[in-house]
Amino acid sequence: MTEQPPPYWLRDNCPCAECRDPRNGQKRFQIGDLPPDLTIAAQCELDGNLEVLWSDGHRSRYPLAWLLDTDEGDGRTEQGKRLWTAADFARGLPEADWEAYLTDPSEQTAVLAAVRRSGFAVLRGVPAVERQVLRVAESFGYVRVTNYGELFDVRVEPDPNNLAFTDRAIAPHTDNPYRDPVPTLQLLHCLENSATGGDSGLVDGFKAAAILRDESPEDFETLTRTPVPFVFRDRRTELRADRPLIGLDPLDRIREVRCNNRSIATLRGTNREAFYAAYRRFAAITLRPELQLTFRLNPGDCLIFDNTRLLHARTAFEQDGHRHLQGCYADLDSLASTLAVLHRRTAALDELAELFAGEGAGEYLGEAVTMAEHMLQAAAAAEAAGAPGHLVAAALLHDVGHFQGALHGRDLMQGQDNRHSDTGAAWLARWFGPEVTEPVRLHVAAKRYLCTVEPDYRAGLSAASEYTLTVQGGPMDEREAAAFAQLPGAADAVAVRRWDEQAKEPGAQTPDFEHYRPLLASLMR
Amino acid sequence: MTEQPPPYWLRDNCPCAECRDPRNGQKRFQIGDLPPDLTIAAQCELDGNLEVLWSDGHRSRYPLAWLLDTDEGDGRTEQGKRLWTAADFARGLPEADWEAYLTDPSEQTAVLAAVRRSGFAVLRGVPAVERQVLRVAESFGYVRVTNYGELFDVRVEPDPNNLAFTDRAIAPHTDNPYRDPVPTLQLLHCLENSATGGDSGLVDGFKAAAILRDESPEDFETLTRTPVPFVFRDRRTELRADRPLIGLDPLDRIREVRCNNRSIATLRGTNREAFYAAYRRFAAITLRPELQLTFRLNPGDCLIFDNTRLLHARTAFEQDGHRHLQGCYADLDSLASTLAVLHRRTAALDELAELFAGEGAGEYLGEAVTMAEHMLQAAAAAEAAGAPGHLVAAALLHDVGHFQGALHGRDLMQGQDNRHSDTGAAWLARWFGPEVTEPVRLHVAAKRYLCTVEPDYRAGLSAASEYTLTVQGGPMDEREAAAFAQLPGAADAVAVRRWDEQAKEPGAQTPDFEHYRPLLASLMR
Repeated sequence: MTEQPPPYWLRDNCPCAECRDPRNGQKRFQIGDLPPDLTIAAQCELDGNLEVLWSDGHRSRYPLAWLLDTDEGDGRTEQGKRLWTAADFARGLPEADWEAYLTDPSEQTAVLAAVRRSGFAVLRGVPAVERQVLRVAESFGYVRVTNYGELFDVRVEPDPNNLAFTDRAIAPHTDNPYRDPVPTLQLLHCLENSATGGDSGLVDGFKAAAILRDESPEDFETLTRTPVPFVFRDRRTELRADRPLIGLDPLDRIREVRCNNRSIATLRGTNREAFYAAYRRFAAITLRPELQLTFRLNPGDCLIFDNTRLLHARTAFEQDGHRHLQGCYADLDSLASTLAVLHRRTAALDELAELFAGEGAGEYLGEAVTMAEHMLQAAAAAEAAGAPGHLVAAALLHDVGHFQGALHGRDLMQGQDNRHSDTGAAWLARWFGPEVTEPVRLHVAAKRYLCTVEPDYRAGLSAASEYTLTVQGGPMDEREAAAFAQLPGAADAVAVRRWDEQAKEPGAQTPDFEHYRPLLASLMR
Repeated sequence: MTEQPPPYWLRDNCPCAECRDPRNGQKRFQIGDLPPDLTIAAQCELDGNLEVLWSDGHRSRYPLAWLLDTDEGDGRTEQGKRLWTAADFARGLPEADWEAYLTDPSEQTAVLAAVRRSGFAVLRGVPAVERQVLRVAESFGYVRVTNYGELFDVRVEPDPNNLAFTDRAIAPHTDNPYRDPVPTLQLLHCLENSATGGDSGLVDGFKAAAILRDESPEDFETLTRTPVPFVFRDRRTELRADRPLIGLDPLDRIREVRCNNRSIATLRGTNREAFYAAYRRFAAITLRPELQLTFRLNPGDCLIFDNTRLLHARTAFEQDGHRHLQGCYADLDSLASTLAVLHRRTAALDELAELFAGEGAGEYLGEAVTMAEHMLQAAAAAEAAGAPGHLVAAALLHDVGHFQGALHGRDLMQGQDNRHSDTGAAWLARWFGPEVTEPVRLHVAAKRYLCTVEPDYRAGLSAASEYTLTVQGGPMDEREAAAFAQLPGAADAVAVRRWDEQAKEPGAQTPDFEHYRPLLASLMR
């Protein structure tokens, strides 16, 4: 293995269930709970793990691969971004259709990943109705309410308190610089845009800052080291935040750009001359033609962008038509969370696909079909019966517990119930709601139930199924059967059970696992 | 005057209405709009101002006093705070009664100022009903929704995804460190607390950080320079923020503390040993007894605290009673805005009080009472008549335009209408709604109206009022009168007018201006 890791670091990362809650990864101890003279009493490498006995008697086990892991950070600094100029989008903007975004996780993943990596994306075909922008924000996070309200209308107003609400051009800027915390995401949803002019513009502020760092390191340093007072004041509001135009993380990576001349109030202090020279140079960079990405928002377009990074702009427009956008704010942290969960779900589907292809190709409890064939046949039967999506999914996944349990199917065949329905339902509950997991959980009980209430049913069981019935408790008594019938998922479980029984035909042709992936993705929550 | 200020700084701060929108202080030009070789062509000091002629022909005027102003910053770093230990609150916590907070702006000001300065305050007597905590947050800002919802219940839950939802002790920590932006304020509203234990604790994280800086500058430096991965992961959420435990502003002042061992994920990189040594030292400081402020929340108490500064804690509790808090998050920027507007309103009331005492003691348009006596008598008449508060205020302030206009009352007496009703209403509209300003705006029109519709009314006018009637346009014609009667504020204006006419009695005893301050404060929005 590599060099010896520091003891407190190693112990703080002990993955055992006593140290960490497996549900959320939160630690169950305080750093001060560790003894002041903690040392490693003994350690060895075993089965790909580092096993450690600590001086206080605690034992830890760390995968060796984990010790060597590297880390890409939280994706919020320039390190995790694709810095761009307008030419990088000559072949089109990162965009998706709203309906596809809603129904296809890979589309939603692409949109959110673009916002994270390039700072923006455009959704097309978002219904051009009022307040719809809030639905877009809620599709990945939470609306941030400000003094402008839950949402704001960008159109010409008679007595505007903000340049946005006029027909004038607006130079590239970030919004709400006088707020701390600044809203980290902005959404602009176009309801109407029939006026001449009024095109939208974006500039990558991280790129502009990186150019400044290249061309004039001293000016860059000045802007990162000068807190600038941003102020907004109207009748009901008096906001102020003192923040640098270019914010760095502790490792001096660009992490935030704030740039809005309208809101810069009086800077005091000694370096005002140096600041204004640096500021003018930076502002000039943000106006370079090659940095201006200009496009037109049409009704139904919704632009989502990173307000800690991108500057946005608007050209002036004529009052020969109407221009009406609705906007709102949200935050990057929830967007990143939604994206991470989407990735996790994709990974889960990949894992299922692998199980179907690998372990699933194995023998299925003495039947003449493999486990994968059995489950695919059950799903096909459900589909052929016109079952709703969640039951097709339940049929497809009903025996997934055979893959996952600590006890495998062969243990069941050796006379021990592996409670595969419970195991499977619990595993699936990480991804699916009760409409999928309950029929899975109850599909064994449904067999015992059907044997009781339908005398003919038991006669139709396969030999293997008849055998496992005994292990599983045999037919229900009448009281059990009555209680079962009252359960919310009972009818669905019975339906799945019938497809289960039909799904043991050697050589039957069915769609493969990938056929069901979009359905499964849409059911994951 | 002092040394010559830098030209671009000076020009960027030009206060003229062409450069700055007087309604919100936002600049109307971009920094790049200024010519590249801007210089001062000429300047002189005149009447307490610096007058500047710029090389591009623009003219600016700056009060000399403004040039010398200093600035206290945005109040978010240690500079604007009172760092504390528990002994500083031996005589009690910063607290207020909820009803008083709602009705008395000075109480609200004190509470919000305490949160800003000391990091917390307690409201007592907040109705112990569900969702009330949201009302508290909305009294100064906006609720920040997170994965825990709009609000969260802190009580024992069967399958908790967070230590908060158990009966166990919780060491001092900040909340949601895995969010960026982190919620900057937290509210905890006690609905029930009959269990043994379950006391609340607060620690000033800025104080703890300042102690670390004093006692171990290298450890302090390490914590400010190490981005720490904070992670929270459950079924629907995967949040991560890489932030230092101690965040500094660009001038190296403490600006943010994040401290929550539960959420610290695996730190990678080379300085892990130094980090853990520094972290353990800092964590030990946060546990020093003299820093622990411990108190009990009782039903109806609502604790508001700065989650970027204070660590909060809870002792373990027995399940011999019920403990139920509801919490929510909000942000410091809006709290500071609300506080600033409250200060502004107090300043406006002080200004009005000064006007009543100073200029108001002067002659009132040839009447035998002063302006202040006249307005106080009108208010007293309205009060005696049982008028609603907004009309008492309108009566009190109806002639405030005489103070404020560019033309003074004496100009009116010289035959020129100073439109004092419009001027007064416009000035008042900075603070009051139309229920106050419309009767003021229309009180002159009401005289012209009453002369038309009530023949006896004109006969009762004072000689001076009869004179000004002519200057103001004389009685309305019938069409004008009919139109006036349709105006929304007409009836109120007529009522104010009648009190106006009654308010010219030499030597009459009335309450003074201070009597009306709470009423005025409650009407300000």
